Amino acid sequence: MSELERFGVSMPAELLDEFDRAIADASYANRSEAVRDLARRYLVERRWEQPEGDVVGTITLIYDHHVPDLVSGLTQMQHDAEAAVICTTHVHLDHHNCAEVIVVRGTAAEIRRLADRMISTRGVKHGELTRTAIGP
Amino acid sequence: MSELERFGVSMPAELLDEFDRAIADASYANRSEAVRDLARRYLVERRWEQPEGDVVGTITLIYDHHVPDLVSGLTQMQHDAEAAVICTTHVHLDHHNCAEVIVVRGTAAEIRRLADRMISTRGVKHGELTRTAIGP
Amino acid sequence: MSELERFGVSMPAELLDEFDRAIADASYANRSEAVRDLARRYLVERRWEQPEGDVVGTITLIYDHHVPDLVSGLTQMQHDAEAAVICTTHVHLDHHNCAEVIVVRGTAAEIRRLADRMISTRGVKHGELTRTAIGP
Amino acid sequence: MSELERFGVSMPAELLDEFDRAIADASYANRSEAVRDLARRYLVERRWEQPEGDVVGTITLIYDHHVPDLVSGLTQMQHDAEAAVICTTHVHLDHHNCAEVIVVRGTAAEIRRLADRMISTRGVKHGELTRTAIGP
Repeated sequence: MSELERFGVSMPAELLDEFDRAIADASYANRSEAVRDLARRYLVERRWEQPEGDVVGTITLIYDHHVPDLVSGLTQMQHDAEAAVICTTHVHLDHHNCAEVIVVRGTAAEIRRLADRMISTRGVKHGELTRTAIGP
Repeated sequence: MSELERFGVSMPAELLDEFDRAIADASYANRSEAVRDLARRYLVERRWEQPEGDVVGTITLIYDHHVPDLVSGLTQMQHDAEAAVICTTHVHLDHHNCAEVIVVRGTAAEIRRLADRMISTRGVKHGELTRTAIGP
Repeated sequence: MSELERFGVSMPAELLDEFDRAIADASYANRSEAVRDLARRYLVERRWEQPEGDVVGTITLIYDHHVPDLVSGLTQMQHDAEAAVICTTHVHLDHHNCAEVIVVRGTAAEIRRLADRMISTRGVKHGELTRTAIGP
Repeated sequence: MSELERFGVSMPAELLDEFDRAIADASYANRSEAVRDLARRYLVERRWEQPEGDVVGTITLIYDHHVPDLVSGLTQMQHDAEAAVICTTHVHLDHHNCAEVIVVRGTAAEIRRLADRMISTRGVKHGELTRTAIGP
């Protein structure tokens, strides 16, 4: 972790009061920690809008593992993907339903394409792409 | 506007560098202004999750004004709404398509119900609810 | 409006039951109307990810009109924008707070840039960009 | 999986054309598959707005594992949570950064509270909660 720098923020007293209550409610230890998190969330959103540069995504799928060829199809897609699949976790939710969480690294468009292919597969009931990134 | 208070934020130098570039890119004049905006956005999200208390919403609709009874139906819904409709703006986009933007004040659930009713109306092609709030 | 076409959709009975309850709850008159809305929402999201082609956006701002030069600055930005500002509605929410809703047409990037500039202005407390589009 | 039912959807020809192109682009095999996915996504959103009933969430965290007590703190929170943590996957992204993906089951509020606590922890750089659900 790089050296810490310090800067001042001015805020209307009323806004600061409400901010303090909200971050306490969300278990933040102090304002710096909360502001750092908000800054990072802002940066992650912007990086995902840029065509270049690696970001990290999590693809969450809910699917019925009884559908023929579904599991092997999803595996094949991960091997064929332009984005690098880092790992896949499989969870048995009930007799029919599995959750699968795939952590992927690549450009926003590469990850988007892999997520599109997986989510559109027959037997995959619900899928979501979560955007994150490695950063300072 | 209430009195300004000042507090310090510490941030890893690398994170601060990237934050500075991003907020310059988004035309923020300084860090305080950007942090205040991020804090307010965070508070607006949280207020919309609470059952009590007034928030402000903007309902944007795209619709075909040739569909019979559509315009009068949408007007009736606004008069019947639990949430207070503050104003409505109507825009002619092309021969068929209108945009209508409705500014509403009420609890999150009241505004949600009005938006649901309007968006689900036959002839309304696309609708979105935008969440905001009055605040410090 | 173009000619209507009809196609069949097959859905597990249990999913269809839950879907029927949800769309009744959201006041949809029938399944076709709900499916058309979901299809249009899906298409609007995709159009906003494409670099070319016009979309429509609504920029909602909450601001303190007592901040010097704010109103004239926001007006100037609208005149300078690459995207075409179709109309602006101004609402007095209380003694200090105004809401302003700006309907804009242009490419996703042009609208994004205008929204960024307006939202980052000192005195603008909260801003949101709502994505929509004209379409079939 | 329950029995399949079939129903008809009518759609303007122009809208259907654009929908067909978009779902082909997203690799859907046919319209039924795409409509089922849109219906499920709609239902998942609505379930997360309800106070009762179990949903499934994925919490994605990026953190610096060198921060003292961070890993043990995050583990403790998972054991203390009201929501049931189903599994946790840990990924080494580079020398400093780890990604951790936690699959959780419980009410929307229980999962939200656990996510808030984890995301606000010092050393956790970015966190996102992804909403899904088991369903028909």
